Amino acid sequence: MTQIALPQSRKDCEALDAADPLRAARERFALPAGVIYLDGHSLGPATHAALQRVDTAARREWVDGLIRSWNTAGWIDLPQRVGAKLARLIGAKPEEVLATDSVTVNLFKLAGAALKLVERPVLMFEQGDFPTDQYVVQGLAELTGTPPMQIAQDGGLHTFAGSRGVLVKSVVDYRTSEVADIAAWEAAAKTTGSVIVWDLSHAAGVVDIDLNTLGVRLAAGCTYKYLNGGPGAPAFVYVSGVPDSFASPIWGWFAAENQFGFSAQFDQKPSAAGFAAGTPPVLSLATLDAALDAFEGVALADVQAKARTLGDLIIARADAMGLETLSPRNALRRGGHVSLRHEHGYAIVQALIARGIIPDFRAPDAMRFGVAPLYVRFVDVWDAMDALADILETGAWDRSEFHARAAVT
Amino acid sequence: MTQIALPQSRKDCEALDAADPLRAARERFALPAGVIYLDGHSLGPATHAALQRVDTAARREWVDGLIRSWNTAGWIDLPQRVGAKLARLIGAKPEEVLATDSVTVNLFKLAGAALKLVERPVLMFEQGDFPTDQYVVQGLAELTGTPPMQIAQDGGLHTFAGSRGVLVKSVVDYRTSEVADIAAWEAAAKTTGSVIVWDLSHAAGVVDIDLNTLGVRLAAGCTYKYLNGGPGAPAFVYVSGVPDSFASPIWGWFAAENQFGFSAQFDQKPSAAGFAAGTPPVLSLATLDAALDAFEGVALADVQAKARTLGDLIIARADAMGLETLSPRNALRRGGHVSLRHEHGYAIVQALIARGIIPDFRAPDAMRFGVAPLYVRFVDVWDAMDALADILETGAWDRSEFHARAAVT
Repeated sequence: MTQIALPQSRKDCEALDAADPLRAARERFALPAGVIYLDGHSLGPATHAALQRVDTAARREWVDGLIRSWNTAGWIDLPQRVGAKLARLIGAKPEEVLATDSVTVNLFKLAGAALKLVERPVLMFEQGDFPTDQYVVQGLAELTGTPPMQIAQDGGLHTFAGSRGVLVKSVVDYRTSEVADIAAWEAAAKTTGSVIVWDLSHAAGVVDIDLNTLGVRLAAGCTYKYLNGGPGAPAFVYVSGVPDSFASPIWGWFAAENQFGFSAQFDQKPSAAGFAAGTPPVLSLATLDAALDAFEGVALADVQAKARTLGDLIIARADAMGLETLSPRNALRRGGHVSLRHEHGYAIVQALIARGIIPDFRAPDAMRFGVAPLYVRFVDVWDAMDALADILETGAWDRSEFHARAAVT
Repeated sequence: MTQIALPQSRKDCEALDAADPLRAARERFALPAGVIYLDGHSLGPATHAALQRVDTAARREWVDGLIRSWNTAGWIDLPQRVGAKLARLIGAKPEEVLATDSVTVNLFKLAGAALKLVERPVLMFEQGDFPTDQYVVQGLAELTGTPPMQIAQDGGLHTFAGSRGVLVKSVVDYRTSEVADIAAWEAAAKTTGSVIVWDLSHAAGVVDIDLNTLGVRLAAGCTYKYLNGGPGAPAFVYVSGVPDSFASPIWGWFAAENQFGFSAQFDQKPSAAGFAAGTPPVLSLATLDAALDAFEGVALADVQAKARTLGDLIIARADAMGLETLSPRNALRRGGHVSLRHEHGYAIVQALIARGIIPDFRAPDAMRFGVAPLYVRFVDVWDAMDALADILETGAWDRSEFHARAAVT
């Protein structure tokens, strides 16, 4: 396994950047001048290819091609082609992944479909999981009359192993960045006959994950974080090793075999393709398609190794500042961001943003620093931590404009 | 009611175009040279404003603003702002409309929510309705254990009036262009306690519709046809006059009050806003936002009046060619396209496309000619009919390349 030594100085950081196998990838990104961007776990930046592509999709394919572009520009199978590109990044076969809808809608479809795989199921969600993961399970439970069941964060695996049903669960915790032990959970599911729908939102593109090898059957994930697909870019579904009868409960015409035969009979496409629903947002989807090329020639093992060392660096510097770390100290159990706690975290993050350093904040008190390895350099993290130390030391965060809350935090 | 006399010659058409109150609207569109576009009922063309806006959203808001654009560019309430713009075009109050997801997913959400409004409901769909409308009802029926029920096209209102449940039904028939008698169906629903979810896909932006006045409670619709939002642009939901408890069955974080409080408790926003789900595709949504400005200063009554006369013109010319018309001859009962039948319709449409005239084809034998009044002129329809007459007379359609089927027809 690739491992990078922890840098002790800015000079060390410069040396690591110079030797970084991902060095060239950074040039693929259109990063604004004067900004250190540590929020790729929330919204990845644009690549030059993505910007070029949305322009082509709009000005050439839409304007000139009009309706013909469904054929001539290949819009019609773009969800599958994007899915196949995503597959390589998560250890899946090309036909097992489809770009479609949002994470929320995809979790709903997968969990709804999974109900048929389990006899007298309960619908499980985890305390403290990302809100939409908790909400969507409860909504599905209410619609279908399936008993909902909350699993506590501590000892959750034990509870899960004693139940039978469908569980929706994030791979990477959005607050702490802790990575779930997928193999252990899947083993428990296998024993009891339960099914897990994994949410890869904070994992895909930064954790070197191999869904096929781990025996994962169902997953959904977000593409606008580490995959840089653009704001609200279409999400994806992953479907593997399920019976032929496994089918999305939202029967949409884009999932129909012989779609343009306009048959009254719904023949659902097999595997992930059957989880399409309506017409996909082509401009957003085409942008995502091009954005994924930032991973061309990139080994996920290198991405993960760099993320781990960048995270270790944040934690080491935070320790020196006396800041509490909410993320696992063991890099093997950590995703692509590090959360630091401070009761005035919101204002501190605003003070950093005012200096051109962009992390984010999650209520009630977590400052999240994302280290997307394709474009975040070691010197970036070093400089950001210098700024954080200065803001804390000087109390520069305690100004009224830094306390004013925005709609999105 | 505005009414335009049927032109009898190309000269008449020129005169009507010169006097057209919508004349200026055409200049808002980026129409490719040498094309007569009669497929706006499938995919509307781009406007200059929409092209400008996707560029701004990508190169300024995403590249420069990054995550901050959720606040500074107003991404966070874009679904509501776009909804409010749509509201004016369908006779709704601003807060009753939300831009979100696809038509398929929205029909699912609305029909799923409507199940709670009816005691022991059946789930109804109409024979021959657009495939996704039929499919989504059957999928929801299977997921929830609700009995599905198909309503025949002939005498459907009578059957509906004798049943109790939730019906999904298109306002404008995608093949024939026939406009449903919404008032009559809603009256029947009121008597029996049934609920109708209307699909406005082929109606919004071309039929002068007033949902509030008609007593419509639930509707969804497409924005990439007559509303020109771009390929696969987000759809919309309309929710009116329902109890406060009326709630989407897909509980997503974008529908949560205090979304960024990350509460474990799902407090759904009221009215249409509660039908949001996951993160919206911002590039596609921003494009739609700007596209809707093509309707600024435009009266829907003028749009509808022009569509009716353009449709009458197609039918008059088709009669002269001996072509069978599948659409209502009475313009008051017809939407924005006219369907003509020919057993070699597919090849004939291809032959027209080869001449730069773009209608579309729907299996098994319907050629659809869309007359979106914002950019289709009287002379365009006249010239297209001249070309059609020539192709039929000379048999120019009968060439092997016109018979080769594309993926999308």
